[in-house]
Amino acid sequence: MSLLVVGTVAFDAIETPFGKTDKIVGGAASYIALASSYFTNHIDLVSVVGDDFPGDFLDTLKTQGVNLDGLQIKKGEKSFFWSGRYHNDMNSRDTLDTQLNVLADFDPKVPESYKNCDFLMLGNLSPAVQQNVLSQLSKRPKLIVLDTMNFWMDIAMSDLLETLKGVDVLTINDSEARQLSGEYSLVKAAKKILAMGPKALVIKKGEHGALLFNKDEVFFAPALPLEEVFDPTGAGDSFAGGFIGYLAKTQDVSFENMKRAIIFGSAMASFTVEKFGTERLIGLSQEDVANRVQEFVDLVQFDISLV
Amino acid sequence: MSLLVVGTVAFDAIETPFGKTDKIVGGAASYIALASSYFTNHIDLVSVVGDDFPGDFLDTLKTQGVNLDGLQIKKGEKSFFWSGRYHNDMNSRDTLDTQLNVLADFDPKVPESYKNCDFLMLGNLSPAVQQNVLSQLSKRPKLIVLDTMNFWMDIAMSDLLETLKGVDVLTINDSEARQLSGEYSLVKAAKKILAMGPKALVIKKGEHGALLFNKDEVFFAPALPLEEVFDPTGAGDSFAGGFIGYLAKTQDVSFENMKRAIIFGSAMASFTVEKFGTERLIGLSQEDVANRVQEFVDLVQFDISLV
Repeated sequence: MSLLVVGTVAFDAIETPFGKTDKIVGGAASYIALASSYFTNHIDLVSVVGDDFPGDFLDTLKTQGVNLDGLQIKKGEKSFFWSGRYHNDMNSRDTLDTQLNVLADFDPKVPESYKNCDFLMLGNLSPAVQQNVLSQLSKRPKLIVLDTMNFWMDIAMSDLLETLKGVDVLTINDSEARQLSGEYSLVKAAKKILAMGPKALVIKKGEHGALLFNKDEVFFAPALPLEEVFDPTGAGDSFAGGFIGYLAKTQDVSFENMKRAIIFGSAMASFTVEKFGTERLIGLSQEDVANRVQEFVDLVQFDISLV
Repeated sequence: MSLLVVGTVAFDAIETPFGKTDKIVGGAASYIALASSYFTNHIDLVSVVGDDFPGDFLDTLKTQGVNLDGLQIKKGEKSFFWSGRYHNDMNSRDTLDTQLNVLADFDPKVPESYKNCDFLMLGNLSPAVQQNVLSQLSKRPKLIVLDTMNFWMDIAMSDLLETLKGVDVLTINDSEARQLSGEYSLVKAAKKILAMGPKALVIKKGEHGALLFNKDEVFFAPALPLEEVFDPTGAGDSFAGGFIGYLAKTQDVSFENMKRAIIFGSAMASFTVEKFGTERLIGLSQEDVANRVQEFVDLVQFDISLV
């Protein structure tokens, strides 16, 4: 089944307690596409970069099976750039610099060959751009997953609420769930958010795992306790990529299968944080992924027989 | 199998975003004894109160099967009193008042009939008092679980390290694990702490669940996502009570059984936070407990077949 990934392909400069990078490749769609490439080999990308963006990385995406027909390369312009510094707890960070560049007037163009996609991952972008992509499709995908962030809640809440009406799954973090709903309790927040449109809600809690809610059920997936979280950048996007990639592979969007998809998403995120940037998501084997998922199974598996 | 519970029986006054109590009954040993009473009916208590302590609550403990021969009631003295205010996130709190009263010179006396206990739960008290109890036993229990807190790390670290050498399981929260080990990563912290004596370590993360480590394995148990956490006071002690109560009932101290015990402990903690003080731990049925444990099973259960 075809998967359409929309989001940024960009540069990041990152400081963590473990080190510091110059400009390296990042962007939501980079992480999503790489993570999902371990599950499905029909991935179409819609994004935009400047002509400063390294061809090497685009070749890597192609090698991982990502179709770049929908990637605009703007001559004489610069790629989106974000720079940030993580605090010691790695759960919070300060933005040091944001240069929108090509993103400032991004007008996404969905190629004809993409318009019948079965699965759609709308990575973090302005709700207006996400909506624009949706409007170009020739049929409604089987599953639409949307990721967003507090920034859009601050400056474009009404656009976001409009876009949310048409999606199946929303992925946000715990503080964003609280902001969007106005509720501190995540259980109450989930109820309010599910009334906004999405049929399922994933609340990402970083090192504390993730919760999946639908109207009647809740599922919890842990994060893997790691010796070091080297760089959390892209963890949420890698999670989303593994999540939708697994759903696209299995073509099953039931709650039971979403539980499995969350474990695969968590596994992909656990790779990402082990190195700076996208490095750890390149060249994994199917065995690497299976072994990592087995660690999640072992981590939470217990056997209680209640009479 | 007999379970000896040592810890405070005391008064608390609590403020949370949901309300405020006058002096109500609390104390680590109160929560531990009540929580463990759903698993074993041979519970011996060592503690101290003043003659201001309500007989009603002592009768409740007896009704729940707790032997009070080791409870000293000091004539003309006052019971230990703690008062605190929780922040909005319920994960942090400020201490408003601490009155040691009878605890200032507590000299625990272990009755003869207690000295052959099979399971020992050393609730949060000064390491010297915990050591004093250990030294009065006539044989080493099958399992010794010790709970402590940052306060003792601040003022009695060498006593604590000495006491840790002789215990089987240590239960502390995540910030205490970081303080005790000097490591931010909980995986690294666990390695260091397990080198201090305990064979197993439980790191309690409040609403984010709990981790169980031994030398080679790790297990994660979630907390139940609740609509409201009404009052977190006593959650950690209720967890410890359910944990050791289940181990005492099943007489199996393997890592596999400790995983189950952690789920039962988490279930007991999830009751406690639903009301102020100890109220929710009184008069539960076995069916209530089983139903709650089933919610934990449902919360984390997934089925992934890896070839």
